[in-house]
Amino acid sequence: MERKDFLRLGGLAAAGTMLGFNGQAAAIDELKAKQKAKNVIILVSDGMSIGTLNMADLFLQRKEGRGSYWLDLYRDRNRKITRALMDTASASSLVTDSAAASSSWGGGVRVKNGSLNVGANGEFYKPIWQKMKAAGKAVGCVTTVPITHATPAGFCVNNKSRKGQPEIAEKYLELRFDVMMGGGLEHFTPEGREDKKDMFSAFTAKDFAVVRDRSQMLNLNTSKPILGVFHEDGLPYSIDRNSSAELQAKIPTLAEMTQTAIKHLKGNPKGFALQVEGGKVDWAAHGNDIGALLYDQIAFDEAVKVALDFAEKDKETLVIITTDHGNANPGLIYGEKANQMFDSIQKYKQSNDWILSGVNKFMTAAQVIERVEAGSGFAITTEQANDLLGQYQHLDEDGLYNPRKMPFKKLAEIQGKYNSVGWISMDHSADFVELAMYGVGSELLPSFIKNTDLHYLMLNATHVEA
Amino acid sequence: MERKDFLRLGGLAAAGTMLGFNGQAAAIDELKAKQKAKNVIILVSDGMSIGTLNMADLFLQRKEGRGSYWLDLYRDRNRKITRALMDTASASSLVTDSAAASSSWGGGVRVKNGSLNVGANGEFYKPIWQKMKAAGKAVGCVTTVPITHATPAGFCVNNKSRKGQPEIAEKYLELRFDVMMGGGLEHFTPEGREDKKDMFSAFTAKDFAVVRDRSQMLNLNTSKPILGVFHEDGLPYSIDRNSSAELQAKIPTLAEMTQTAIKHLKGNPKGFALQVEGGKVDWAAHGNDIGALLYDQIAFDEAVKVALDFAEKDKETLVIITTDHGNANPGLIYGEKANQMFDSIQKYKQSNDWILSGVNKFMTAAQVIERVEAGSGFAITTEQANDLLGQYQHLDEDGLYNPRKMPFKKLAEIQGKYNSVGWISMDHSADFVELAMYGVGSELLPSFIKNTDLHYLMLNATHVEA
Repeated sequence: MERKDFLRLGGLAAAGTMLGFNGQAAAIDELKAKQKAKNVIILVSDGMSIGTLNMADLFLQRKEGRGSYWLDLYRDRNRKITRALMDTASASSLVTDSAAASSSWGGGVRVKNGSLNVGANGEFYKPIWQKMKAAGKAVGCVTTVPITHATPAGFCVNNKSRKGQPEIAEKYLELRFDVMMGGGLEHFTPEGREDKKDMFSAFTAKDFAVVRDRSQMLNLNTSKPILGVFHEDGLPYSIDRNSSAELQAKIPTLAEMTQTAIKHLKGNPKGFALQVEGGKVDWAAHGNDIGALLYDQIAFDEAVKVALDFAEKDKETLVIITTDHGNANPGLIYGEKANQMFDSIQKYKQSNDWILSGVNKFMTAAQVIERVEAGSGFAITTEQANDLLGQYQHLDEDGLYNPRKMPFKKLAEIQGKYNSVGWISMDHSADFVELAMYGVGSELLPSFIKNTDLHYLMLNATHVEA
Repeated sequence: MERKDFLRLGGLAAAGTMLGFNGQAAAIDELKAKQKAKNVIILVSDGMSIGTLNMADLFLQRKEGRGSYWLDLYRDRNRKITRALMDTASASSLVTDSAAASSSWGGGVRVKNGSLNVGANGEFYKPIWQKMKAAGKAVGCVTTVPITHATPAGFCVNNKSRKGQPEIAEKYLELRFDVMMGGGLEHFTPEGREDKKDMFSAFTAKDFAVVRDRSQMLNLNTSKPILGVFHEDGLPYSIDRNSSAELQAKIPTLAEMTQTAIKHLKGNPKGFALQVEGGKVDWAAHGNDIGALLYDQIAFDEAVKVALDFAEKDKETLVIITTDHGNANPGLIYGEKANQMFDSIQKYKQSNDWILSGVNKFMTAAQVIERVEAGSGFAITTEQANDLLGQYQHLDEDGLYNPRKMPFKKLAEIQGKYNSVGWISMDHSADFVELAMYGVGSELLPSFIKNTDLHYLMLNATHVEA
């Protein structure tokens, strides 16, 4: 199939046939007539329900007297954008995980949850950053979670399971992409890996520039491919980084990684393709942690600004801003004092992860109250403290995002009585999600797409062959 | 202020100044150049979080093999639409109620929750349907809740409190608008009203055509203004109506009311303005009642189709489709069996209101199980039945939407274990909401608006003076 035909055959119209509506694509000639995007930057706030976008904007308005860069882009009538709702389902579920979600964009095909561009019969779908690289573009990914995690991996590799992060690190070595930065130290060090390989040595031997902290990254001046790994597992939550001079010195922000990546990639004559993931937005939603959620959404928003500023000057770039699925559908709930309660979040200084990892079952209620207050800026009651302590007596839950089995749910319930924020669950939702485009090729976006359509749209906009 | 200046002065730019961004309006000349909308139809699914729109669409896809009319409009590339996110805050809260929300559109000014176009110092803001009427348009409202309820009232009257529904009925008599139909019998009958007035006689005496059931409405052939009141309080939930031949005979659907209204209004030489409210979507969300929610959203969607079909042929109509605020942020949550659990809702035959009003504290667990199964099509456990029964021993809650104090929350929690749907609360949320326009004047909509901007946009599109 010709690349330019996707809107007619590959993507929307196929969905249309299934649904029995009579949608019809723009004429091929019309698509041909458009200017080619030299660069594409796709920014993904992972697991961002609409309430996350909304509350981060309201939070900034009330705290700093300004809106978010994402929504100010909508408010600015001088900048032309397109927007869509995106259906995020996977091959196995109406509710996708991040691996299937990224694969839908990365490979153009819906696969089962957990899988990275590998179909039900083991077939491989070529990841889009490989296609972009083959077309001569410089490519990269930056993220606040392990660089081997589902969302970057879905643009780069084929792997039966997202859990194979050590193998994914090896695949990155082979691919030699231009910029790969984030967390996930344990998949690169001999101590962290079961096979005891020293991946950093392997990357250096293969002529990568390897950076391990913020200042190394900021001082980079190289034409080599860059591997940056700054922390075990995910990078610290932005709210915790903001409260720690040590973390600020060691860990770059997502905006700084984005700036570094663009600087490194933009010299390539045939352009570049960059994925930017605010991955810990999803983790904060899994933890029902409103402080961590808002500050990581705001950190993502700073990266949005970096991309928009570049694209505005460059005039050859398509910027895509979206999320891969909803998570926990948080919202500010009505109540007499909803405004003041919402504003109380401005006093939060630490994530709930920070709070709870400082509590243990031998502590007194007074100590727990002190710990919560150090993190959230308000005193819970003795009854609530005891309720929380009680959870430490029988920690037996399990889950991908709660390896230390801490009582995130209970703390969020207690906090909710003070901040008026509610959550539907600690997991992903099937909500259709927000998607916006700015720049060259943004006119290709219709008002509703399936996640897989985005694969073809990125290829169409850049005139890269599928 | 000149009407055409609103984008520069009254609405967006004022917000812009506050937020410090440099948005700029389209030139006035550009607005002048556009075709004038003769008619405007605004359809409001009251209290519709994005998950409600999304799940209704997925529900239809899986049950009937078709999408919702609302989202199929987005999917159809032959029909040009515009979309925005809308900030729904009121003067008193980030989380609006329906009175302040409707007033923002109706009067163009944010007022405190509970108030209908009356400001903090008692000042009145002229409701938009009065402006439209003064400009020679025929005007009307149809709804599935009392016709005197907040959302229709906010387009028609000034009243300090939404609670003054008996006075609002009297104001409607004075206004003599062309079509007013919905529920709320108790505000029109001597038995229901404290002042014992017979409002139906008063409306008849003032030369209204008064209709009280579906067949009377469908057989209307009159040039008189129409008052239709079909039920006490809100109309029955669509899911309950679908299961009752008696209710089907007596109560019109929202689509039928919409069709009747358009038929009655469209002959007016200077055009018409119609508000259509799916009011029980909000009530179902307040009740965390997924069956009632989906079927009332679908009933709203049928009214959307009626409006779109009319506008498509008419070519002089602006159609606005939106909601006034989120409510309870429902979502389908991830789980191994999320799809099957979601599909189990297809077996629901009755609302939770129907189920719970048939339970009392003298029943056995077996009887409760039978009642729930009759409504939802599955058997809860004896433990769950006893849990539900226990709630009847101490019903002491209170609230606007739960006058009979039934355990809606408990039943939703039990159902959630079978249908994988979650809720953040039983109240409104501050989420920015979905807004779409189709037809003449739709090009006036920017990507982000405050609710008050919609007032001026409707006036601008129809060239009616503020």
